[in-house]
Amino acid sequence: MLTKTNNKLEKIEITSTFWKKYRELIVKEVLPYQWEVMNDSADISITHEPGGNDAHQEHSHAIQNLEIAAGLKKGKHNGYTFQDTDVYKWLEAAAYSLKYHPDNELRKITDSLIDLIADAQEEDGYLVTYFQIEAPDRKFARLKQSHELYTMGHYIEAAVAYYEVTQNHKALDIATRMADCMAINFGYGDQQIPGYDGHPEIELALARLYELTQNHKYLELAEFYINERGQDNFFDRQISEDGFTRDLIDGMRNFPLTYYQAAEPIREQETAEGHAVRVVYLCTGMAYVARLTGDRSLLESCQRLWKNIVEQKMYITGGIGSTNIGESFTGNYDLPNDTMYGETCASVGMAFFAKEMLNLEAKGEYADVLEKQLFNGIISGISLDGTHFFYVNPLQADKETSKNNPSRNHVLNQRAEWFGCACCPSNVARLIASVDKYIYTIKDDVILSHQFISNKAKFSNGIEVCQESNYPWEGTISYTINNTSTLDKLIGIRIPKWSQKNGKLIINGETKELILEDGFVYLSISQGITNIQLVLDMAVKKYQANENVSYDFGKVAVQRGPIVYCVEKIDQDLDVWKYTLTNDNEYQFTFDPQLLGGLVTIQANAKFPEEQENKSLYREYSAPTFIKTKIKLIPYYAWANRESENMEVWINQE
Amino acid sequence: MLTKTNNKLEKIEITSTFWKKYRELIVKEVLPYQWEVMNDSADISITHEPGGNDAHQEHSHAIQNLEIAAGLKKGKHNGYTFQDTDVYKWLEAAAYSLKYHPDNELRKITDSLIDLIADAQEEDGYLVTYFQIEAPDRKFARLKQSHELYTMGHYIEAAVAYYEVTQNHKALDIATRMADCMAINFGYGDQQIPGYDGHPEIELALARLYELTQNHKYLELAEFYINERGQDNFFDRQISEDGFTRDLIDGMRNFPLTYYQAAEPIREQETAEGHAVRVVYLCTGMAYVARLTGDRSLLESCQRLWKNIVEQKMYITGGIGSTNIGESFTGNYDLPNDTMYGETCASVGMAFFAKEMLNLEAKGEYADVLEKQLFNGIISGISLDGTHFFYVNPLQADKETSKNNPSRNHVLNQRAEWFGCACCPSNVARLIASVDKYIYTIKDDVILSHQFISNKAKFSNGIEVCQESNYPWEGTISYTINNTSTLDKLIGIRIPKWSQKNGKLIINGETKELILEDGFVYLSISQGITNIQLVLDMAVKKYQANENVSYDFGKVAVQRGPIVYCVEKIDQDLDVWKYTLTNDNEYQFTFDPQLLGGLVTIQANAKFPEEQENKSLYREYSAPTFIKTKIKLIPYYAWANRESENMEVWINQE
Repeated sequence: MLTKTNNKLEKIEITSTFWKKYRELIVKEVLPYQWEVMNDSADISITHEPGGNDAHQEHSHAIQNLEIAAGLKKGKHNGYTFQDTDVYKWLEAAAYSLKYHPDNELRKITDSLIDLIADAQEEDGYLVTYFQIEAPDRKFARLKQSHELYTMGHYIEAAVAYYEVTQNHKALDIATRMADCMAINFGYGDQQIPGYDGHPEIELALARLYELTQNHKYLELAEFYINERGQDNFFDRQISEDGFTRDLIDGMRNFPLTYYQAAEPIREQETAEGHAVRVVYLCTGMAYVARLTGDRSLLESCQRLWKNIVEQKMYITGGIGSTNIGESFTGNYDLPNDTMYGETCASVGMAFFAKEMLNLEAKGEYADVLEKQLFNGIISGISLDGTHFFYVNPLQADKETSKNNPSRNHVLNQRAEWFGCACCPSNVARLIASVDKYIYTIKDDVILSHQFISNKAKFSNGIEVCQESNYPWEGTISYTINNTSTLDKLIGIRIPKWSQKNGKLIINGETKELILEDGFVYLSISQGITNIQLVLDMAVKKYQANENVSYDFGKVAVQRGPIVYCVEKIDQDLDVWKYTLTNDNEYQFTFDPQLLGGLVTIQANAKFPEEQENKSLYREYSAPTFIKTKIKLIPYYAWANRESENMEVWINQE
Repeated sequence: MLTKTNNKLEKIEITSTFWKKYRELIVKEVLPYQWEVMNDSADISITHEPGGNDAHQEHSHAIQNLEIAAGLKKGKHNGYTFQDTDVYKWLEAAAYSLKYHPDNELRKITDSLIDLIADAQEEDGYLVTYFQIEAPDRKFARLKQSHELYTMGHYIEAAVAYYEVTQNHKALDIATRMADCMAINFGYGDQQIPGYDGHPEIELALARLYELTQNHKYLELAEFYINERGQDNFFDRQISEDGFTRDLIDGMRNFPLTYYQAAEPIREQETAEGHAVRVVYLCTGMAYVARLTGDRSLLESCQRLWKNIVEQKMYITGGIGSTNIGESFTGNYDLPNDTMYGETCASVGMAFFAKEMLNLEAKGEYADVLEKQLFNGIISGISLDGTHFFYVNPLQADKETSKNNPSRNHVLNQRAEWFGCACCPSNVARLIASVDKYIYTIKDDVILSHQFISNKAKFSNGIEVCQESNYPWEGTISYTINNTSTLDKLIGIRIPKWSQKNGKLIINGETKELILEDGFVYLSISQGITNIQLVLDMAVKKYQANENVSYDFGKVAVQRGPIVYCVEKIDQDLDVWKYTLTNDNEYQFTFDPQLLGGLVTIQANAKFPEEQENKSLYREYSAPTFIKTKIKLIPYYAWANRESENMEVWINQE
């Protein structure tokens, strides 16, 4: 696990039509829009945060809070204690975008933003504007709710990204001073706090900072936070000192310790519990630290929680979090489609976790889940115009029910312009802007090509890869690999689980048997050019859920390649739940360049019961006459981009 | 509508095996148990109130609060502002029981209780122990939350019942003094409060008091409360005077005005909205007042709301309230089975409403719903041992989900010993103890026999009815009617909607054609004995929901006679949702005297998919092999009387 890798991804350019469009959207729409919103100059309406713990307000105030903390403006802090993180995640996204789309105007803005952040930072490195402005006496005093380490951690992530792209040392200095501030304040010493943040994130941020700076102190601090978590009643002790009723965020008092990932030490935890984003951020940090320290028990904890999430608690779209109450995981196989959460941030976090697990173990399973998130659960969080966002990503949505039933009104039928707690919009932005980091993993010097996102890449071991395809709409992936060294080099190509029965690999014109090792086919690439064609199984397929998932009994979900499909009311005559797919398995699929930015739609044979003449609420049953019809399915990620409509992923199966 | 009726039910004795058992349970178990609980001497554990607005405590304290208010004890008030109502509803149930089961010991207790209540009452008639003990300066100051009129109204109901049975005048005097206190404090005068209670109930209580006392002031006051409701921002004005943040009940601040039945004047309201119990209590009061005053617009409001509830918002069991959030109605046809509420009190209230509508209009539809409530939604609220109660009556319950999913943990899988907010236990008790009042309605001197609960009854117009059957297990209802007068008398016999296709009426041995007028067959009964046999259609039937109810699509509910059936895990091999009823409509039904107090169980043909070998969370669909089997159904009201088990009413239909 600790094997040092010498090979490195030196350069990568994304050429995928599908992803270039998203990444240009980030540059042209998302970053300017979000910058305006954070500067309170966008004319938008802010939707209530669907988890319910909402400090609702008309504007973001995120930049203004920094200006007040920097002494440039006077006023009150507005928003959550972690309001600053919107700025930092935006900055991180901007940093990634500057790599693939250098832009002097944007660079001026981000450099000035770094100056502003530097001005807002205190002498000792502390920077959380809420506490600086409103409650300087409560710094680090109520970590269960304060999000202070979470907030600074997000800056650290942004700084690492920004420094890597721009070499702006001031940006990095702010981050190291923050981490130094934590290192002084936290630990087992007499004057130190033996505790951790209620919202994990700092662990992964410190690991990233360590990777960049090689300052071992930061890795040790990350380990400290991981190890302390859940050990004793630290939160209670702090709260009794801070004052029981002085909540920092309304409604958080009664959440159980599982919500805060503090119910037990992580090495003893058997299942993923509580707030889904917190779980996957923590797991990402753990996986990171496990790799950097070789801590096998941490790796095992990651494997255990991964297994529980992926085998018992994940929606077919990659969504996680089965309830809005506490934005949390629930029991095994408890996957309701209509009252669920499936937060965009949780899918983003699950992609982080998958990426780190791939760094630990060359298993296709991690990349399968990463692909599921990238093509479904993550991008469903952002509208095709780049200015509307989902917090909740349901698998079933009904406009009237969302409006009239408070148990279901966290499920929106259209993406919102912004949220009171706006964690998701910038999170999806930074993920898309850095998607080039998710295509390859280097493990023991071997290049693992696991995501089919067309690109040109150059590795330090002399391998140059040109990967071309029209994925996800077509399944033929062409690799032109140039081995510029004199030695043969190993490369692993992932065969997705959904294609393992019918996938085909053609090397220099010759079909090769698929010999899979944990989901990868390993090929030895000799000097010079090797042409590889991977032909994936792009048949339309129906999936069914495990028999313990009561909500999906008798239903199927349609998938083609990595894309999960859904039925949207706007494409059918009747309400979506009235259709039943017939048993013939005949489908037509077409690429429609005009529809929703261009995508493949599927037509499937279905039936629906003839309309009842008797309109009573209940009537004696008579076997219905079914009428044959066709239904049209669109990719899940693209739903709710036309009108606010009813949608479902799981469809009745004959 | 104002036609005075001269005929009266003079005497009735219930002989039904089914109901006698329940009514003996009230005497032997329910009343003694609840009395102990209210005196804090029962060794029980109190379950959180599933609506979420819980002032949780270890004991009821309901009697102790009265003792403190009466100056007999010192101490703090405990529980809700309406804690007294538990005592009053119990007293009302006790009163009814004394009629069918005279009991000197109980009579001593209730008479002493009246003395205690009299001692607790203030000079001016006011009696709400919370405000007397804890907040005398806030009397009538925050009616949106205070439940003061609701609380005294429940005493008035109890007093009317107690006086009618015992002629205890002290009991009635307390009630009239309460009502006089209200009449002085409420109205349009300078010193009066132009407002009403956030929880309707006083309207029906005052109407009952008027009927007994014939004091017109009480009827006018009931009208005043009905008319004022929703007219202006009365609640806001009171709250701004009382202090915005000084909530009497945590969590109630943000409920919408619909919750309080105060969003608009009742005559303008088109649909039933908000807290279901409040809706049906209000409607009962309105129907009562409409009958007593001849107010046609009130009758129309009742008809409109009835129609909306029964045709769009009622579960097949009679349950109402589709969400626990605000214990409320939601949209039309929004009837989720797993996250619903279906409060026992709401079914009891719906029975009140039906009874009053029957007093207004001789329509079988009202009696159909009344029957549905009596045999399903109401009695499901009480265990067969009389000491456990449901607040929420779901149509689908899953033990693991209730435990692990906070969006669903208001749905219990076993009845509780008591609740923090214990409105349901005494409500179901008073309904069962007074079920003799729900069997006949006299409309324009005509006797309407609408509930098939065996009884012997004597009417003031000279008619004596002996109704015999083994209902609900058998469908032959034998009437022996003795007309002791010399004139022919009309009697209406209801043919339930579920039997109108195949019902049969045999009069003195001769089969008579069913000529229905609004669900009733009217017969002219001559002097002497008439023998009538009503033969109802007791075939097992499957019902389906209106096509707009997405939750029940492709599913059926099984009913036999008035009894709705369910599948409980304990009777099957597999989890309940895995079964699909086949299309043959062959059933076996048997009366099992040993099972759950004796009831008819149904066996139906079903199938289930062969167990999957592949245990992945998602797998490629292959048409399952179905295995034929039989499933056993039990009456819905009897579920959760063995173990805490999974249950469902709506079953997949082939």
